Amino acid sequence: MTLIFYDYSKAPSPRRARIFLAEKNVPHKTVEINLMANEQMGDAFRKINPDCTVPALQLEDGKILTDNASIAAYLEEIYPEPPLLGTTPYEKAVIASWQSKIDHEFGMAVASALRNANPAMKDRSLPGKHNYKQIPELSIRGLKQIDNFLNFLETHLQEKEFISTGKFTIADISAACALDFARVVKKKANENMHPNIIRWRSGLSQRKSFNI
Amino acid sequence: MTLIFYDYSKAPSPRRARIFLAEKNVPHKTVEINLMANEQMGDAFRKINPDCTVPALQLEDGKILTDNASIAAYLEEIYPEPPLLGTTPYEKAVIASWQSKIDHEFGMAVASALRNANPAMKDRSLPGKHNYKQIPELSIRGLKQIDNFLNFLETHLQEKEFISTGKFTIADISAACALDFARVVKKKANENMHPNIIRWRSGLSQRKSFNI
Repeated sequence: MTLIFYDYSKAPSPRRARIFLAEKNVPHKTVEINLMANEQMGDAFRKINPDCTVPALQLEDGKILTDNASIAAYLEEIYPEPPLLGTTPYEKAVIASWQSKIDHEFGMAVASALRNANPAMKDRSLPGKHNYKQIPELSIRGLKQIDNFLNFLETHLQEKEFISTGKFTIADISAACALDFARVVKKKANENMHPNIIRWRSGLSQRKSFNI
Repeated sequence: MTLIFYDYSKAPSPRRARIFLAEKNVPHKTVEINLMANEQMGDAFRKINPDCTVPALQLEDGKILTDNASIAAYLEEIYPEPPLLGTTPYEKAVIASWQSKIDHEFGMAVASALRNANPAMKDRSLPGKHNYKQIPELSIRGLKQIDNFLNFLETHLQEKEFISTGKFTIADISAACALDFARVVKKKANENMHPNIIRWRSGLSQRKSFNI
């Protein structure tokens, strides 16, 4: 039985897992779950992932991993090459730290900015099976967080090709997916203010995994 | 040079690292950073952790880990016994998933509920070096998330001693620290509604690491 990857090609969260799978050349079958049609909330997908989110990955023995954290941890063990979570204890630590930082200060900021302002996402302030009403001020806070993170990342990337450890890692995947998706809230790296971010992101575009 | 652990004994986030260190019996020196006196924002601590947050851990070579994610990842490698992040690929995956779930749906919910309502935390809607103004509706959303998570955890813990993999793991540490801290927003496990959570939490109280 092959791995089954539950994806939605337009969303940033499953894109992170899709790039991770591609970088490690993991053979798998893809099933598209149409979030725009609310397919993730239906009974069929609820049996696969009760949290009603993508990505999810069904393993060869039928077990299912239901988020990016578990998919990355599992695949790094089974397909160690190329390493994307670090090899030495210190590398593993700093990459875990970047993942946490990018999640809290950037990925979730973009999600907050979108989910709390888009009329199509009424009551969808958070992903998952519970409805929470939109909080317009939270969208505004998200936009400020994005500005702060981009300024921080710009300084960090001076003379660096990658975010952490001098190598391509999951931190580059997470940050690039959040950056690309930020266009939905009209935020992007600016030629004058963020030349290092633009250089870093252009470098990633050379990778096959970023073009599937 | 010994490890230096930057702690604040009353806060839930450094408590997670403190328990992790204790479970693995890691020799270290502790330095208390008084968050109530805003010591984390001062120049001295900014040189240690520019993010102005605890926990932080200075390693033997002087490098500094600046959050729970990196501290756990590092210590698990250097002090593998007892394993707290899992041993098999699948265990590592499900524990990573629990960590993400507890962080997003519980730990951050408690933080949101507190930070967006407490008058003493004006402009401290989020931890870290940037100020963001309080959003009262976000406090209310946090309280709802706590209720939803406790209901979910109650069902999950039926006939289970620990949250994940049948063993004590970092998931128990993270969830218990969030639960204990939830008292600051008047939320706690209820004898009638959450008997499994109360049984699980009582079991953890037998551990020395939960009593330091």
